[in-house]
Parts: sequence; C-alpha cells; structure tokens
Amino acid sequence: MANMLKNTDQEWMAYALTLARQAAEHGDVPVGAVLVREGEAIAAAGNRREADGVATAHAELLCVEQACRKLGRWRLSDCTLYVTLEPCPMCAGALINARIGRVVFGAKDAKAGACGSVLNMDAYPLNHRLRAEGGVLACECAAVLSEFFEKKRESLRRPRSLC
Amino acid sequence: MANMLKNTDQEWMAYALTLARQAAEHGDVPVGAVLVREGEAIAAAGNRREADGVATAHAELLCVEQACRKLGRWRLSDCTLYVTLEPCPMCAGALINARIGRVVFGAKDAKAGACGSVLNMDAYPLNHRLRAEGGVLACECAAVLSEFFEKKRESLRRPRSLC
Repeated sequence: MANMLKNTDQEWMAYALTLARQAAEHGDVPVGAVLVREGEAIAAAGNRREADGVATAHAELLCVEQACRKLGRWRLSDCTLYVTLEPCPMCAGALINARIGRVVFGAKDAKAGACGSVLNMDAYPLNHRLRAEGGVLACECAAVLSEFFEKKRESLRRPRSLC
Repeated sequence: MANMLKNTDQEWMAYALTLARQAAEHGDVPVGAVLVREGEAIAAAGNRREADGVATAHAELLCVEQACRKLGRWRLSDCTLYVTLEPCPMCAGALINARIGRVVFGAKDAKAGACGSVLNMDAYPLNHRLRAEGGVLACECAAVLSEFFEKKRESLRRPRSLC
C-alpha cells in the first residue's frame, strides 16, 4: 500500500475501487476499503473471505485492524473509512467500536447494509454514531459487483465439458 | 488452550468465565468466549481490546477468526459459541457472517447487546438467524464484570499520593 495523498472523496473511493477489483481476482466479492488519516492512507484492504477462508475478513474490518496496529490504539476518531459497499452489521459494528471519525461508502447493499438499507445502526443508542455518507462513485462501485456476479452466474451456466 | 471435552452448556460457560477473568488481569473488560465443535474447544479467547490496542479484538471475534483458520473455512454452522456477555453488534454480525450453528451467552448487555437488549439482529432479514440463548451462568458472568468496574471506579477515587 502506498501512502498516497489524495484530495477528494472521489479519489479515495477510486483507490478503494482498485482494491475491490483485486479482490475479484482471487474469487472474492469485490469490495475494497481504505482508511485515511490526515490525508494519508494508513490502511487498505480488499475483501478476503474466500482467499483466507475467514468469515471476518471483510475489507472494512481488515482496515480497522491494520490501522489500530499501526497507530497502537483502538480509537480511530481522527480517521475516515472509504468503502465501496455499504458496511454489513459486523463492519458497521466494528466502526462503531473504533469510534471512527467518518464513514463514506459507494453503493448501497440491499441484502446486508447496516447504514440504512436493511437496518440502520444509528437508530440505536450505542456509544457512537456513524452518520455514514453513501453514494460516492456509487454506479462504478455497483458495476464492479454486478459484473462479478454476472460472470459467476455465467460460469455456472456453462457446461464443464461437451463430452 | 486445551482441547477439552465438556458435557454441558454450564461447563463450557465456566471455561469461558476463566478466560474472562484472565482478560481482567491485563486491564481488559472481562469477557471470555469458547468455540466448540463436536464436543471439542477449537478456539478460545478473552477480550484483548486494551492489551492489543485493537478495536475488533473482542473475545467472540477472536474465536471466529481462530476457528476459521483452524478449519480452513468461513462457515461455522457445525459450531457453538459460548460467551460470557451478550454479543455487541460487531460480534453478532460476525457470528451471522460465519453462519454459526448456535450461540449461548451468559449475562445480558444493556449498553451494547445485539441479541435482544439494545437491538435484536434476528429482527432483520439477514442471511442467517442467531437465535441466541442467554442466561447460562448469568449471575457469575455479570459478577465478574461488576467487580471489574467496581475496582476501576475505586482506583479512580483513591488519591494517587497523600502529599
């Protein structure tokens, strides 16, 4: 991971998108995330559930772990997380536990989104509010996912052998 | 961690309680968890948020990670997780993501419990239901926590020096 200086939400999301595409290369659902502090990427990851065989290896959770280890503290209130897909309950919960400063996501997740789509974690009296902002490069983030699932469906339809 | 054979929910919870007490020794909120498959503990952990400075280092999450790496797969539908405190949203979400077979907890968590206390993750159409069972050794699990916080309050009240 390069410690890149970026100026805008769109640029950080574009970086997260490159990590999402890399995740697809090892058979993982293409979701990418980058964690930024003072204009610098201090953690970056793609989804690795299939690659590692670990249920918790979502991009956001890996970023939170990396960042905490790098900073030597569990509070990330001075950090922003960019992620291509709306966080699931586990990841939204991890971001609450880390007291993340800001969350920006791309596409909505109608199946597991915990920032308004399936549930809204901010609706509960937990000890931090995410106030996640969605929709940054939403079409691009959603397209990477649709292409992945379309290819997957296609490979299932294709006969393995003609014999 | 010994690969112990135990017969009852109470015995596994008692083991989780010993891990909770160990967590308190390194200044962490005393919560312990053990993950059991075919009568054998395949993962066990205490809360390590303070010890490691990592926001995600809750006992349940550490157990899920350990178990996935041990089994080489992210689905834990043949496993039971025992934890001394009702899981928070992050941990409940992790258990849903791992398709955990069964969840048994001790004390309720009125501040962050996601299995009925603050929110109920099962109330949402996610891709797995936890149907967590609470109340096993509940008094003992709650007592370990109260003692920890009482000691903490006491040390804050005590003057550092008489001079």
